[in-house]
Amino acid sequence: MSPSSLDELIEALRCLPGVGPKSAQRMAYHLLQRDQRGAARLARAMTHALEVLRHCERCNTFAEEVVCARCANPQRDATQLCVVEMPADLAMMEQTHAYNGLYYVLMGRLSPLDGVGPRELKLDKLIARASDGQVQEVILATNFTNEGEATAHMIAELLAARGLRVSRLSRGVPVGGELEHTDTGTIAQALVERRPL
Amino acid sequence: MSPSSLDELIEALRCLPGVGPKSAQRMAYHLLQRDQRGAARLARAMTHALEVLRHCERCNTFAEEVVCARCANPQRDATQLCVVEMPADLAMMEQTHAYNGLYYVLMGRLSPLDGVGPRELKLDKLIARASDGQVQEVILATNFTNEGEATAHMIAELLAARGLRVSRLSRGVPVGGELEHTDTGTIAQALVERRPL
Repeated sequence: MSPSSLDELIEALRCLPGVGPKSAQRMAYHLLQRDQRGAARLARAMTHALEVLRHCERCNTFAEEVVCARCANPQRDATQLCVVEMPADLAMMEQTHAYNGLYYVLMGRLSPLDGVGPRELKLDKLIARASDGQVQEVILATNFTNEGEATAHMIAELLAARGLRVSRLSRGVPVGGELEHTDTGTIAQALVERRPL
Repeated sequence: MSPSSLDELIEALRCLPGVGPKSAQRMAYHLLQRDQRGAARLARAMTHALEVLRHCERCNTFAEEVVCARCANPQRDATQLCVVEMPADLAMMEQTHAYNGLYYVLMGRLSPLDGVGPRELKLDKLIARASDGQVQEVILATNFTNEGEATAHMIAELLAARGLRVSRLSRGVPVGGELEHTDTGTIAQALVERRPL
């Protein structure tokens, strides 16, 4: 007996990740009852983003241009290509101010259980990008989760087969970290990968 | 350096309850990367709902008509008026198939900490509705939380002052409930409100 436009809004909200029937209902009531301006703004922002956003031809991140401003910037070092999973990871790398090369954003990671294999991740686009003749080193900065590690291994194999130099962010104790509060897996890794001083 | 349309979408998603900056980012990536159809549908559903939904003049719930189908139904018993907090509560009452009266949906509850007082809750609309001359009993079915109880007490006082008969859903051990697994507050309440057999 509830109005069909309300039912449809609740159903449509379920496309959001982590939103089940109860949250969707709560969200719909909240928007309609307490924040109609926010809801109108969200609908507009979503429609606009769907219209104008595409993937940068070079780095694959979301962009409004064919080639994003970062890839088009001649000040960046085109000999280094850093591979990250998501735009948020790229943003973290940039915040370090320790890297001036270019990026490739996978927009995901290998995840066989979710049906994401090399084909779904479009690794051929990355290989083509890395084989442009300018890139001399590919730095793998996928997450250090199981899936991120598997993704890095797969990419390393594919790129090494094409004669490209591949590196990976180092693992170890975080800066400022105390051994007492660091997990043993990380300490063990830091021991194996210890560096001469 | 991220595209403004993406930033605007992420910012707009934060109007959803319980969605902070990180979730908003995750939602935006998910929609753009994996579910553009869902996003388009959501934007449409939201725009449509904002256009057509209003509050039923009689029961205050969301409706596409001036008076909703339930309030307009002559088969329902117009002498009973059940007061609930939200449309979801009304749906639960309907699912019991134990009630054939009419409803009034507060669309909230008294919540002084959130600045929701009798004025914000528009209790005058409820009082006007309950004073239509047909209603003989008002059944308070707000939640049994602190705020729901306070709301019920406030409404009971206001309506009793106008000579209306007011009742409240009973409290007690849930049907099928075992004492061993029922909280002591509920058991104490069930003891105080015990019924003669």
